Amino acid sequence: MAVIGVGLIGGSLAGAARRAGLVRTVIGCGRSPENLATARRRRLIDRATTDPAEAAAGADLVVLAVPVGTMAAVAAAIASRLAPGAVVTDVGSVKGAVVAALEPLCARVGAAFVGAHPIAGSEAHGAGAADPRLFRGQRCILTPTPTTDRAALARVRALWEGVGMRVEEMEAAAHDAILARVSHVPHLLAYALTAAVAGACAGEHELLAYAGSGFRDTTRIAASPADLWRDIALANRPQVLAGLDEFGAALDAIVDLVRREDGTALERVLAAAQRRRVALGTAAPARPRRRAGPRVR
Amino acid sequence: MAVIGVGLIGGSLAGAARRAGLVRTVIGCGRSPENLATARRRRLIDRATTDPAEAAAGADLVVLAVPVGTMAAVAAAIASRLAPGAVVTDVGSVKGAVVAALEPLCARVGAAFVGAHPIAGSEAHGAGAADPRLFRGQRCILTPTPTTDRAALARVRALWEGVGMRVEEMEAAAHDAILARVSHVPHLLAYALTAAVAGACAGEHELLAYAGSGFRDTTRIAASPADLWRDIALANRPQVLAGLDEFGAALDAIVDLVRREDGTALERVLAAAQRRRVALGTAAPARPRRRAGPRVR
Repeated sequence: MAVIGVGLIGGSLAGAARRAGLVRTVIGCGRSPENLATARRRRLIDRATTDPAEAAAGADLVVLAVPVGTMAAVAAAIASRLAPGAVVTDVGSVKGAVVAALEPLCARVGAAFVGAHPIAGSEAHGAGAADPRLFRGQRCILTPTPTTDRAALARVRALWEGVGMRVEEMEAAAHDAILARVSHVPHLLAYALTAAVAGACAGEHELLAYAGSGFRDTTRIAASPADLWRDIALANRPQVLAGLDEFGAALDAIVDLVRREDGTALERVLAAAQRRRVALGTAAPARPRRRAGPRVR
Repeated sequence: MAVIGVGLIGGSLAGAARRAGLVRTVIGCGRSPENLATARRRRLIDRATTDPAEAAAGADLVVLAVPVGTMAAVAAAIASRLAPGAVVTDVGSVKGAVVAALEPLCARVGAAFVGAHPIAGSEAHGAGAADPRLFRGQRCILTPTPTTDRAALARVRALWEGVGMRVEEMEAAAHDAILARVSHVPHLLAYALTAAVAGACAGEHELLAYAGSGFRDTTRIAASPADLWRDIALANRPQVLAGLDEFGAALDAIVDLVRREDGTALERVLAAAQRRRVALGTAAPARPRRRAGPRVR
Protein backbone atom coordinates (compact mmCIF):
# COMPACT_ATOMS: atom_id res chain seq x y z
CA MET A 1 0.00 0.00 0.00
CA ALA A 2 1.27 3.44 -0.92
CA VAL A 3 -0.04 6.33 1.16
CA ILE A 4 0.47 9.68 -0.53
CA GLY A 5 0.28 12.26 2.25
CA VAL A 6 1.26 10.90 5.66
CA GLY A 7 -0.70 13.41 7.74
CA LEU A 8 -3.33 12.87 10.41
CA ILE A 9 -5.54 10.69 8.19
CA GLY A 10 -2.90 9.09 5.95
CA GLY A 11 -0.61 8.38 8.89
CA SER A 12 -3.42 6.99 11.03
CA LEU A 13 -4.57 4.72 8.19
CA ALA A 14 -1.04 3.51 7.51
CA GLY A 15 -0.50 2.65 11.16
CA ALA A 16 -3.93 1.06 11.55
CA ALA A 17 -3.58 -1.08 8.42
CA ARG A 18 -0.14 -2.29 9.50
CA ARG A 19 -1.32 -3.11 13.02
CA ALA A 20 -4.36 -4.98 11.72
CA GLY A 21 -2.22 -6.98 9.30
CA LEU A 22 -4.22 -5.71 6.33
CA VAL A 23 -1.17 -4.88 4.24
CA ARG A 24 2.31 -6.32 3.75
CA THR A 25 4.30 -3.14 3.22
CA VAL A 26 3.36 0.53 3.49
CA ILE A 27 5.24 3.13 1.51
CA GLY A 28 4.65 6.64 2.75
CA CYS A 29 5.07 9.68 0.55
CA GLY A 30 5.09 13.34 1.54
CA ARG A 31 6.84 16.63 0.89
CA SER A 32 8.39 16.97 4.33
CA PRO A 33 11.33 14.67 5.15
CA GLU A 34 10.85 15.55 8.84
CA ASN A 35 7.24 14.40 8.79
CA LEU A 36 8.21 11.19 6.97
CA ALA A 37 10.92 10.57 9.57
CA THR A 38 8.28 10.95 12.28
CA ALA A 39 6.06 8.46 10.47
CA ARG A 40 8.91 5.93 10.23
CA ARG A 41 9.93 6.45 13.84
CA ARG A 42 6.32 5.86 14.91
CA ARG A 43 6.25 2.71 12.72
CA LEU A 44 3.31 3.99 10.72
CA ILE A 45 5.12 3.22 7.45
CA ASP A 46 7.82 0.81 6.29
CA ARG A 47 9.51 2.99 3.69
CA ALA A 48 9.42 6.66 2.79
CA THR A 49 9.88 8.76 -0.31
CA THR A 50 9.18 12.34 -1.33
CA ASP A 51 8.35 11.24 -4.91
CA PRO A 52 4.68 10.26 -5.42
CA ALA A 53 5.41 8.40 -8.65
CA GLU A 54 8.10 6.32 -6.95
CA ALA A 55 5.72 5.53 -4.08
CA ALA A 56 2.96 4.43 -6.43
CA ALA A 57 5.16 2.30 -8.70
CA GLY A 58 4.48 -1.33 -7.90
CA ALA A 59 1.86 -0.66 -5.23
CA ASP A 60 -1.38 -2.53 -5.74
CA LEU A 61 -3.28 -0.17 -3.44
CA VAL A 62 -2.65 3.58 -3.55
CA VAL A 63 -4.33 5.89 -1.03
CA LEU A 64 -4.34 9.60 -1.82
CA ALA A 65 -4.46 11.47 1.50
CA VAL A 66 -3.59 14.95 0.27
CA PRO A 67 -5.71 18.14 0.36
CA VAL A 68 -8.75 17.95 -1.93
CA GLY A 69 -7.38 20.66 -4.22
CA THR A 70 -4.16 18.68 -4.77
CA MET A 71 -5.76 15.29 -5.57
CA ALA A 72 -5.95 15.70 -9.34
CA ALA A 73 -2.36 16.93 -9.68
CA VAL A 74 -1.00 14.09 -7.54
CA ALA A 75 -3.06 11.53 -9.45
CA ALA A 76 -1.76 12.89 -12.73
CA ALA A 77 1.82 12.68 -11.39
CA ILE A 78 1.49 8.99 -10.49
CA ALA A 79 -0.78 7.78 -13.30
CA SER A 80 1.90 6.60 -15.69
CA ARG A 81 3.63 4.58 -12.96
CA LEU A 82 0.57 2.78 -11.63
CA ALA A 83 0.71 -1.00 -11.81
CA PRO A 84 -1.87 -2.62 -14.11
CA GLY A 85 -4.97 -3.38 -12.02
CA ALA A 86 -3.86 -1.14 -9.17
CA VAL A 87 -6.62 0.16 -6.94
CA VAL A 88 -6.54 3.90 -6.23
CA THR A 89 -8.62 5.45 -3.49
CA ASP A 90 -8.68 8.72 -1.57
CA VAL A 91 -9.79 10.15 1.77
CA GLY A 92 -11.11 13.52 0.60
CA SER A 93 -13.91 15.34 2.43
CA VAL A 94 -15.43 16.26 -0.94
CA LYS A 95 -16.34 13.47 -3.33
CA GLY A 96 -18.05 14.87 -6.44
CA ALA A 97 -15.09 16.89 -7.72
CA VAL A 98 -12.53 14.26 -6.71
CA VAL A 99 -14.38 11.33 -8.30
CA ALA A 100 -15.01 13.31 -11.48
CA ALA A 101 -11.30 14.07 -11.84
CA LEU A 102 -9.75 10.79 -10.70
CA GLU A 103 -12.03 8.10 -12.08
CA PRO A 104 -11.36 8.79 -15.78
CA LEU A 105 -7.68 9.50 -15.10
CA CYS A 106 -7.22 6.10 -13.46
CA ALA A 107 -9.34 4.31 -16.05
CA ARG A 108 -7.07 5.59 -18.82
CA VAL A 109 -4.07 3.75 -17.34
CA GLY A 110 -5.94 0.56 -16.41
CA ALA A 111 -6.26 1.32 -12.69
CA ALA A 112 -9.52 1.33 -10.72
CA PHE A 113 -10.59 4.33 -8.66
CA VAL A 114 -12.92 4.19 -5.64
CA GLY A 115 -13.83 7.40 -3.80
CA ALA A 116 -13.84 7.17 -0.01
CA HIS A 117 -14.27 9.50 2.94
CA PRO A 118 -13.48 8.24 6.42
CA ILE A 119 -15.40 10.61 8.71
CA ALA A 120 -12.81 10.89 11.43
CA GLY A 121 -10.18 13.36 12.43
CA SER A 122 -9.54 16.40 14.53
CA GLU A 123 -8.02 19.84 14.21
CA ALA A 124 -4.56 18.29 14.60
CA HIS A 125 -2.33 17.50 11.65
CA GLY A 126 0.83 15.68 10.66
CA ALA A 127 2.22 12.19 11.30
CA GLY A 128 2.94 13.19 14.88
CA ALA A 129 -0.81 13.48 15.50
CA ALA A 130 -1.67 10.21 13.73
CA ASP A 131 -3.55 7.64 15.80
CA PRO A 132 -4.15 4.10 14.48
CA ARG A 133 -7.33 3.99 16.61
CA LEU A 134 -8.72 7.13 14.97
CA PHE A 135 -11.21 5.31 12.77
CA ARG A 136 -12.73 2.79 15.15
CA GLY A 137 -16.49 2.94 15.29
CA GLN A 138 -16.69 5.94 12.96
CA ARG A 139 -18.42 6.11 9.58
CA CYS A 140 -16.71 5.75 6.23
CA ILE A 141 -18.60 6.67 3.09
CA LEU A 142 -17.69 5.10 -0.26
CA THR A 143 -19.01 6.76 -3.40
CA PRO A 144 -18.90 4.23 -6.23
CA THR A 145 -20.24 5.13 -9.66
CA PRO A 146 -22.00 2.83 -12.16
CA THR A 147 -18.60 2.10 -13.72
CA THR A 148 -16.68 1.39 -10.49
CA ASP A 149 -14.91 -1.97 -10.53
CA ARG A 150 -16.68 -4.22 -8.02
CA ALA A 151 -13.52 -6.02 -6.89
CA ALA A 152 -11.80 -2.69 -6.26
CA LEU A 153 -14.84 -1.50 -4.31
CA ALA A 154 -14.74 -4.63 -2.16
CA ARG A 155 -11.05 -4.16 -1.51
CA VAL A 156 -11.47 -0.55 -0.37
CA ARG A 157 -14.42 -1.54 1.80
CA ALA A 158 -12.30 -4.28 3.40
CA LEU A 159 -9.55 -1.76 4.14
CA TRP A 160 -11.82 0.61 6.07
CA GLU A 161 -13.77 -2.15 7.77
CA GLY A 162 -10.44 -3.68 8.71
CA VAL A 163 -9.45 -0.54 10.64
CA GLY A 164 -12.78 -0.54 12.46
CA MET A 165 -15.04 1.74 10.44
CA ARG A 166 -18.75 1.39 9.67
CA VAL A 167 -18.72 1.52 5.88
CA GLU A 168 -21.64 2.59 3.71
CA GLU A 169 -22.06 3.55 0.09
CA MET A 170 -23.88 6.49 -1.42
CA GLU A 171 -23.70 8.78 -4.43
CA ALA A 172 -21.00 11.43 -4.34
CA ALA A 173 -23.66 14.16 -4.65
CA ALA A 174 -25.49 12.92 -1.55
CA HIS A 175 -22.22 12.75 0.36
CA ASP A 176 -21.34 16.30 -0.58
CA ALA A 177 -24.78 17.61 0.37
CA ILE A 178 -24.56 15.97 3.80
CA LEU A 179 -20.97 16.85 4.63
CA ALA A 180 -21.42 20.47 3.55
CA ARG A 181 -23.99 20.84 6.34
CA VAL A 182 -22.54 18.74 9.16
CA SER A 183 -18.86 19.53 8.56
CA HIS A 184 -17.88 22.10 5.95
CA VAL A 185 -20.27 24.86 7.05
CA PRO A 186 -19.49 24.32 10.78
CA HIS A 187 -15.79 24.75 9.98
CA LEU A 188 -16.41 28.04 8.19
CA LEU A 189 -18.59 29.23 11.09
CA ALA A 190 -15.83 28.41 13.56
CA TYR A 191 -13.28 30.34 11.48
CA ALA A 192 -15.71 33.28 11.19
CA LEU A 193 -16.47 33.37 14.93
CA THR A 194 -12.76 33.26 15.74
CA ALA A 195 -12.07 36.00 13.18
CA ALA A 196 -14.83 38.18 14.65
CA VAL A 197 -13.52 37.93 18.22
CA ALA A 198 -9.74 37.45 17.87
CA GLY A 199 -7.79 40.62 18.41
CA ALA A 200 -10.87 42.65 19.34
CA CYS A 201 -11.16 44.55 22.61
CA ALA A 202 -13.90 46.04 24.75
CA GLY A 203 -12.20 49.08 26.23
CA GLU A 204 -8.86 47.82 27.51
CA HIS A 205 -10.11 44.23 27.79
CA GLU A 206 -9.07 41.74 25.12
CA LEU A 207 -12.15 39.66 24.32
CA LEU A 208 -10.35 36.33 23.89
CA ALA A 209 -9.00 36.54 27.45
CA TYR A 210 -12.57 35.92 28.62
CA ALA A 211 -13.29 32.93 26.40
CA GLY A 212 -14.60 30.01 28.43
CA SER A 213 -15.17 26.38 27.56
CA GLY A 214 -18.18 27.23 25.41
CA PHE A 215 -16.20 29.48 23.07
CA ARG A 216 -13.33 27.01 23.02
CA ASP A 217 -15.50 24.07 22.00
CA THR A 218 -17.48 26.09 19.49
CA THR A 219 -14.30 27.23 17.72
CA ARG A 220 -12.07 24.16 18.24
CA ILE A 221 -12.18 23.20 14.56
CA ALA A 222 -10.95 26.67 13.56
CA ALA A 223 -7.53 25.35 14.58
CA SER A 224 -7.70 23.04 11.54
CA PRO A 225 -5.25 23.63 8.66
CA ALA A 226 -6.47 26.56 6.54
CA ASP A 227 -5.28 25.10 3.23
CA LEU A 228 -7.32 21.92 3.70
CA TRP A 229 -10.50 23.86 4.39
CA ARG A 230 -9.95 26.40 1.63
CA ASP A 231 -9.78 23.44 -0.77
CA ILE A 232 -12.88 21.79 0.68
CA ALA A 233 -14.94 24.99 0.61
CA LEU A 234 -14.04 25.62 -3.02
CA ALA A 235 -14.37 22.00 -4.20
CA ASN A 236 -17.83 21.69 -2.64
CA ARG A 237 -18.78 25.29 -3.32
CA PRO A 238 -22.44 24.91 -4.43
CA GLN A 239 -23.37 22.73 -1.46
CA VAL A 240 -21.34 24.83 0.98
CA LEU A 241 -23.07 27.99 -0.20
CA ALA A 242 -26.48 26.28 0.05
CA GLY A 243 -25.66 25.07 3.57
CA LEU A 244 -24.50 28.55 4.56
CA ASP A 245 -27.81 29.94 3.27
CA GLU A 246 -29.74 27.44 5.39
CA PHE A 247 -27.68 28.33 8.46
CA GLY A 248 -28.19 32.02 7.70
CA ALA A 249 -31.96 31.54 7.57
CA ALA A 250 -31.96 29.73 10.93
CA LEU A 251 -29.79 32.44 12.48
CA ASP A 252 -31.88 35.25 10.97
CA ALA A 253 -34.98 33.74 12.55
CA ILE A 254 -33.31 33.84 15.98
CA VAL A 255 -31.88 37.34 15.47
CA ASP A 256 -35.29 38.60 14.42
CA LEU A 257 -36.89 37.27 17.62
CA VAL A 258 -34.17 38.88 19.75
CA ARG A 259 -34.63 42.16 17.88
CA ARG A 260 -38.40 42.07 18.36
CA GLU A 261 -37.99 40.90 21.99
CA ASP A 262 -40.34 37.98 21.35
CA GLY A 263 -39.32 35.86 24.33
CA THR A 264 -42.03 33.25 23.87
CA ALA A 265 -41.13 32.41 20.28
CA LEU A 266 -37.41 32.70 21.03
CA GLU A 267 -37.62 30.15 23.82
CA ARG A 268 -39.64 27.85 21.54
CA VAL A 269 -36.97 27.96 18.82
CA LEU A 270 -34.07 27.52 21.26
CA ALA A 271 -35.87 24.71 23.11
CA ALA A 272 -36.48 22.79 19.87
CA ALA A 273 -32.77 23.00 19.03
CA GLN A 274 -31.86 22.08 22.60
CA ARG A 275 -33.96 18.91 22.43
CA ARG A 276 -32.32 17.85 19.16
CA ARG A 277 -28.85 18.58 20.48
CA VAL A 278 -29.44 16.70 23.74
CA ALA A 279 -30.71 13.72 21.72
CA LEU A 280 -27.55 13.76 19.60
CA GLY A 281 -25.46 13.14 22.72
CA THR A 282 -22.06 14.40 23.67
CA ALA A 283 -19.74 11.71 22.37
CA ALA A 284 -19.14 10.24 18.97
CA PRO A 285 -20.62 6.73 18.55
CA ALA A 286 -19.15 4.15 20.88
CA ARG A 287 -16.09 2.52 19.46
CA PRO A 288 -16.70 -1.17 18.88
CA ARG A 289 -14.10 -3.67 19.93
CA ARG A 290 -11.31 -4.15 17.51
CA ARG A 291 -11.87 -7.03 15.23
CA ALA A 292 -9.61 -8.92 12.92
CA GLY A 293 -10.36 -7.60 9.47
CA PRO A 294 -9.82 -9.44 6.22
CA ARG A 295 -6.49 -9.02 4.53
CA VAL A 296 -6.80 -6.34 1.88
CA ARG A 297 -3.97 -7.56 -0.28
CA MET B 1 -25.61 31.84 53.09
CA ALA B 2 -28.86 31.49 51.20
CA VAL B 3 -28.62 30.23 47.63
CA ILE B 4 -31.76 30.96 45.63
CA GLY B 5 -31.67 28.54 42.71
CA VAL B 6 -29.74 25.34 43.42
CA GLY B 7 -28.87 24.51 39.81
CA LEU B 8 -25.49 23.90 38.19
CA ILE B 9 -24.01 27.22 39.38
CA GLY B 10 -25.91 27.69 42.64
CA GLY B 11 -25.42 24.07 43.65
CA SER B 12 -21.74 24.09 42.74
CA LEU B 13 -21.17 27.29 44.72
CA ALA B 14 -23.07 25.96 47.73
CA GLY B 15 -21.01 22.79 47.76
CA ALA B 16 -17.72 24.58 47.15
CA ALA B 17 -18.33 27.16 49.89
CA ARG B 18 -19.24 24.43 52.38
CA ARG B 19 -16.20 22.34 51.51
CA ALA B 20 -13.89 25.34 51.79
CA GLY B 21 -15.35 26.29 55.16
CA LEU B 22 -16.37 29.70 53.86
CA VAL B 23 -19.86 29.57 55.34
CA ARG B 24 -21.50 28.11 58.43
CA THR B 25 -24.86 27.08 57.03
CA VAL B 26 -26.23 27.00 53.49
CA ILE B 27 -29.95 27.27 52.89
CA GLY B 28 -30.94 26.21 49.40
CA CYS B 29 -34.11 27.44 47.75
CA GLY B 30 -35.72 26.23 44.55
CA ARG B 31 -39.05 25.43 42.93
CA SER B 32 -38.43 21.71 42.56
CA PRO B 33 -38.52 19.60 45.75
CA GLU B 34 -36.82 16.78 43.83
CA ASN B 35 -33.89 19.02 42.88
CA LEU B 36 -33.60 20.28 46.46
CA ALA B 37 -33.61 16.69 47.71
CA THR B 38 -30.76 15.95 45.31
CA ALA B 39 -28.86 18.96 46.65
CA ARG B 40 -29.33 17.79 50.23
CA ARG B 41 -28.40 14.20 49.41
CA ARG B 42 -25.22 15.46 47.75
CA ARG B 43 -24.50 17.61 50.82
CA LEU B 44 -24.42 20.78 48.77
CA ILE B 45 -26.82 22.50 51.20
CA ASP B 46 -27.76 22.14 54.86
CA ARG B 47 -31.42 23.06 54.65
CA ALA B 48 -33.96 23.45 51.88
CA THR B 49 -37.06 25.48 51.24
CA THR B 50 -39.21 26.34 48.25
CA ASP B 51 -39.91 29.84 49.63
CA PRO B 52 -37.29 32.47 48.65
CA ALA B 53 -38.37 34.89 51.40
CA GLU B 54 -37.98 32.18 54.02
CA ALA B 55 -34.54 31.27 52.68
CA ALA B 56 -33.39 34.90 52.74
CA ALA B 57 -34.72 35.69 56.21
CA GLY B 58 -31.79 35.84 58.59
CA ALA B 59 -29.14 35.09 55.98
CA ASP B 60 -26.27 37.56 55.92
CA LEU B 61 -25.24 36.53 52.40
CA VAL B 62 -27.85 35.86 49.72
CA VAL B 63 -26.80 34.51 46.31
CA LEU B 64 -29.34 34.77 43.50
CA ALA B 65 -28.61 31.93 41.07
CA VAL B 66 -31.79 32.05 39.02
CA PRO B 67 -32.23 32.86 35.31
CA VAL B 68 -31.42 36.48 34.47
CA GLY B 69 -35.02 37.27 33.59
CA THR B 70 -36.20 36.07 37.02
CA MET B 71 -33.67 38.01 39.15
CA ALA B 72 -35.76 41.15 39.71
CA ALA B 73 -38.91 39.24 40.68
CA VAL B 74 -37.02 37.02 43.12
CA ALA B 75 -35.23 40.02 44.63
CA ALA B 76 -38.56 41.79 45.08
CA ALA B 77 -39.98 38.70 46.76
CA ILE B 78 -37.18 38.52 49.33
CA ALA B 79 -36.50 42.25 49.88
CA SER B 80 -38.80 42.78 52.86
CA ARG B 81 -37.30 39.80 54.68
CA LEU B 82 -33.62 40.67 54.19
CA ALA B 83 -31.64 41.12 57.41
CA PRO B 84 -30.26 44.64 57.96
CA GLY B 85 -26.81 44.82 56.42
CA ALA B 86 -27.30 41.63 54.43
CA VAL B 87 -25.15 41.24 51.31
CA VAL B 88 -26.97 40.22 48.15
CA THR B 89 -25.12 39.02 45.08
CA ASP B 90 -25.97 37.14 41.89
CA VAL B 91 -24.35 34.91 39.28
CA GLY B 92 -26.06 36.26 36.17
CA SER B 93 -24.39 36.19 32.75
CA VAL B 94 -25.71 39.70 32.09
CA LYS B 95 -24.77 42.45 34.50
CA GLY B 96 -26.12 45.81 33.29
CA ALA B 97 -29.81 44.95 33.53
CA VAL B 98 -29.39 42.94 36.73
CA VAL B 99 -27.37 45.60 38.57
CA ALA B 100 -29.77 48.35 37.47
CA ALA B 101 -32.73 46.41 38.88
CA LEU B 102 -31.23 44.94 42.05
CA GLU B 103 -28.96 47.67 43.41
CA PRO B 104 -31.72 50.22 44.18
CA LEU B 105 -34.09 47.48 45.32
CA CYS B 106 -31.58 46.24 47.91
CA ALA B 107 -30.57 49.77 48.94
CA ARG B 108 -34.18 50.57 49.82
CA VAL B 109 -34.23 47.84 52.48
CA GLY B 110 -30.74 48.52 53.85
CA ALA B 111 -29.04 45.59 52.08
CA ALA B 112 -25.97 45.86 49.84
CA PHE B 113 -25.95 44.47 46.31
CA VAL B 114 -22.81 43.36 44.42
CA GLY B 115 -23.13 42.05 40.86
CA ALA B 116 -21.02 39.00 40.04
CA HIS B 117 -20.53 36.60 37.14
CA PRO B 118 -18.50 33.45 37.68
CA ILE B 119 -17.45 32.43 34.15
CA ALA B 120 -17.81 28.72 34.56
CA GLY B 121 -20.39 26.15 33.67
CA SER B 122 -21.43 23.71 31.01
CA GLU B 123 -24.51 22.76 29.08
CA ALA B 124 -25.64 20.62 32.04
CA HIS B 125 -28.13 21.85 34.63
CA GLY B 126 -29.60 21.03 38.01
CA ALA B 127 -28.15 20.09 41.38
CA GLY B 128 -27.31 16.64 40.02
CA ALA B 129 -24.78 18.25 37.66
CA ALA B 130 -23.28 20.52 40.34
CA ASP B 131 -19.54 20.20 40.90
CA PRO B 132 -17.80 21.99 43.79
CA ARG B 133 -14.62 22.10 41.67
CA LEU B 134 -16.41 23.89 38.82
CA PHE B 135 -14.94 27.31 39.57
CA ARG B 136 -11.29 26.52 40.19
CA GLY B 137 -8.90 28.55 38.10
CA GLN B 138 -11.73 30.22 36.15
CA ARG B 139 -12.50 33.93 36.00
CA CYS B 140 -15.13 35.73 38.06
CA ILE B 141 -16.10 39.26 37.16
CA LEU B 142 -17.52 41.63 39.78
CA THR B 143 -19.28 44.77 38.58
CA PRO B 144 -19.37 47.26 41.44
CA THR B 145 -20.82 50.74 40.90
CA PRO B 146 -19.70 54.00 42.51
CA THR B 147 -22.23 53.40 45.28
CA THR B 148 -21.35 49.76 46.01
CA ASP B 149 -20.56 49.12 49.68
CA ARG B 150 -16.83 48.33 49.91
CA ALA B 151 -17.19 45.81 52.72
CA ALA B 152 -19.87 43.96 50.76
CA LEU B 153 -17.64 43.99 47.70
CA ALA B 154 -14.75 42.52 49.72
CA ARG B 155 -17.02 39.83 51.08
CA VAL B 156 -18.25 38.76 47.64
CA ARG B 157 -14.68 38.79 46.35
CA ALA B 158 -13.61 36.56 49.26
CA LEU B 159 -16.42 34.11 48.45
CA TRP B 160 -15.34 33.61 44.84
CA GLU B 161 -11.63 33.63 45.59
CA GLY B 162 -12.37 31.13 48.34
CA VAL B 163 -13.79 28.65 45.80
CA GLY B 164 -10.74 29.08 43.59
CA MET B 165 -11.69 31.77 41.09
CA ARG B 166 -9.53 34.56 39.65
CA VAL B 167 -11.60 37.61 40.52
CA GLU B 168 -11.51 40.93 38.71
CA GLU B 169 -13.68 44.01 38.66
CA MET B 170 -15.02 45.99 35.72
CA GLU B 171 -18.02 48.07 34.75
CA ALA B 172 -21.19 46.18 33.97
CA ALA B 173 -21.25 47.66 30.46
CA ALA B 174 -17.76 46.31 29.69
CA HIS B 175 -18.73 42.90 31.05
CA ASP B 176 -21.82 42.79 28.86
CA ALA B 177 -19.89 43.85 25.75
CA ILE B 178 -17.31 41.12 26.30
CA LEU B 179 -19.65 38.29 27.25
CA ALA B 180 -22.00 39.03 24.35
CA ARG B 181 -19.14 38.19 21.99
CA VAL B 182 -17.38 35.30 23.71
CA SER B 183 -20.46 33.60 25.14
CA HIS B 184 -23.92 34.88 24.26
CA VAL B 185 -23.42 35.05 20.48
CA PRO B 186 -21.66 31.64 20.34
CA HIS B 187 -24.65 30.12 22.14
CA LEU B 188 -27.09 31.58 19.62
CA LEU B 189 -24.88 30.34 16.75
CA ALA B 190 -24.87 26.84 18.22
CA TYR B 191 -28.66 26.86 18.52
CA ALA B 192 -28.96 28.17 14.94
CA LEU B 193 -26.59 25.55 13.51
CA THR B 194 -28.44 22.78 15.32
CA ALA B 195 -31.78 24.17 14.12
CA ALA B 196 -30.53 24.33 10.53
CA VAL B 197 -29.34 20.71 10.48
CA ALA B 198 -31.64 18.87 12.92
CA GLY B 199 -34.40 16.97 11.23
CA ALA B 200 -33.13 17.78 7.73
CA CYS B 201 -32.33 15.08 5.20
CA ALA B 202 -30.33 14.74 2.00
CA GLY B 203 -32.40 12.26 0.02
CA GLU B 204 -33.10 9.41 2.44
CA HIS B 205 -30.10 10.29 4.64
CA GLU B 206 -30.73 12.14 7.90
CA LEU B 207 -28.01 14.77 8.19
CA LEU B 208 -27.47 14.43 11.93
CA ALA B 209 -26.58 10.76 11.55
CA TYR B 210 -23.37 11.91 9.88
CA ALA B 211 -22.35 14.46 12.51
CA GLY B 212 -18.78 13.89 13.67
CA SER B 213 -16.80 15.31 16.56
CA GLY B 214 -16.51 18.71 14.85
CA PHE B 215 -20.26 19.21 14.67
CA ARG B 216 -20.71 17.89 18.20
CA ASP B 217 -18.17 20.26 19.71
CA THR B 218 -19.39 23.22 17.69
CA THR B 219 -22.98 22.72 18.88
CA ARG B 220 -22.37 21.35 22.41
CA ILE B 221 -23.66 24.50 24.09
CA ALA B 222 -26.95 24.23 22.17
CA ALA B 223 -27.83 21.58 24.77
CA SER B 224 -27.97 24.40 27.34
CA PRO B 225 -31.37 25.28 28.89
CA ALA B 226 -33.38 27.37 26.44
CA ASP B 227 -35.01 29.54 29.11
CA LEU B 228 -31.65 30.68 30.49
CA TRP B 229 -30.41 31.72 27.10
CA ARG B 230 -33.66 33.37 26.04
CA ASP B 231 -33.32 35.55 29.16
CA ILE B 232 -29.65 36.32 28.51
CA ALA B 233 -30.23 37.22 24.85
CA LEU B 234 -33.05 39.58 25.77
CA ALA B 235 -31.39 41.13 28.83
CA ASN B 236 -28.19 41.87 26.86
CA ARG B 237 -30.02 42.58 23.61
CA PRO B 238 -28.08 45.63 22.31
CA GLN B 239 -24.68 43.97 22.82
CA VAL B 240 -25.90 40.60 21.55
CA LEU B 241 -27.25 42.22 18.38
CA ALA B 242 -23.98 44.15 17.94
CA GLY B 243 -21.96 40.95 18.42
CA LEU B 244 -24.18 39.12 15.93
CA ASP B 245 -23.56 41.91 13.41
CA GLU B 246 -19.80 41.58 13.87
CA PHE B 247 -20.02 37.81 13.43
CA GLY B 248 -22.21 38.32 10.36
CA ALA B 249 -19.61 40.63 8.82
CA ALA B 250 -16.82 38.09 9.42
CA LEU B 251 -18.94 35.29 7.94
CA ASP B 252 -20.03 37.42 4.97
CA ALA B 253 -16.37 38.08 4.15
CA ILE B 254 -15.69 34.33 4.05
CA VAL B 255 -18.87 33.55 2.09
CA ASP B 256 -17.98 36.22 -0.44
CA LEU B 257 -14.54 34.68 -1.02
CA VAL B 258 -16.08 31.22 -1.47
CA ARG B 259 -18.65 32.65 -3.88
CA ARG B 260 -15.96 34.43 -5.90
CA GLU B 261 -13.64 31.38 -5.69
CA ASP B 262 -10.82 33.56 -4.37
CA GLY B 263 -8.70 30.78 -2.89
CA THR B 264 -5.73 32.98 -2.06
CA ALA B 265 -7.67 35.47 0.02
CA LEU B 266 -9.81 32.69 1.53
CA GLU B 267 -6.74 30.83 2.75
CA ARG B 268 -5.34 34.06 4.18
CA VAL B 269 -8.51 34.74 6.20
CA LEU B 270 -8.81 31.14 7.41
CA ALA B 271 -5.10 30.97 8.29
CA ALA B 272 -5.29 34.16 10.37
CA ALA B 273 -8.21 32.70 12.35
CA GLN B 274 -6.38 29.36 12.64
CA ARG B 275 -3.33 31.04 14.17
CA ARG B 276 -5.45 32.88 16.73
CA ARG B 277 -7.38 29.75 17.62
CA VAL B 278 -4.23 27.63 17.97
CA ALA B 279 -2.77 30.32 20.24
CA LEU B 280 -5.91 30.23 22.41
CA GLY B 281 -5.24 26.57 23.19
CA THR B 282 -7.63 23.70 23.68
CA ALA B 283 -8.26 23.73 27.41
CA ALA B 284 -9.55 26.31 29.83
CA PRO B 285 -6.81 27.83 32.03
CA ALA B 286 -5.06 25.35 34.28
CA ARG B 287 -6.77 24.97 37.59
CA PRO B 288 -4.56 26.18 40.44
CA ARG B 289 -4.20 24.08 43.54
CA ARG B 290 -6.98 24.47 46.00
CA ARG B 291 -6.18 26.91 48.70
CA ALA B 292 -7.79 27.68 52.00
CA GLY B 293 -9.84 30.79 51.41
CA PRO B 294 -10.78 33.33 54.05
CA ARG B 295 -14.01 32.76 55.87
CA VAL B 296 -16.72 34.82 54.22
CA ARG B 297 -18.97 35.08 57.24
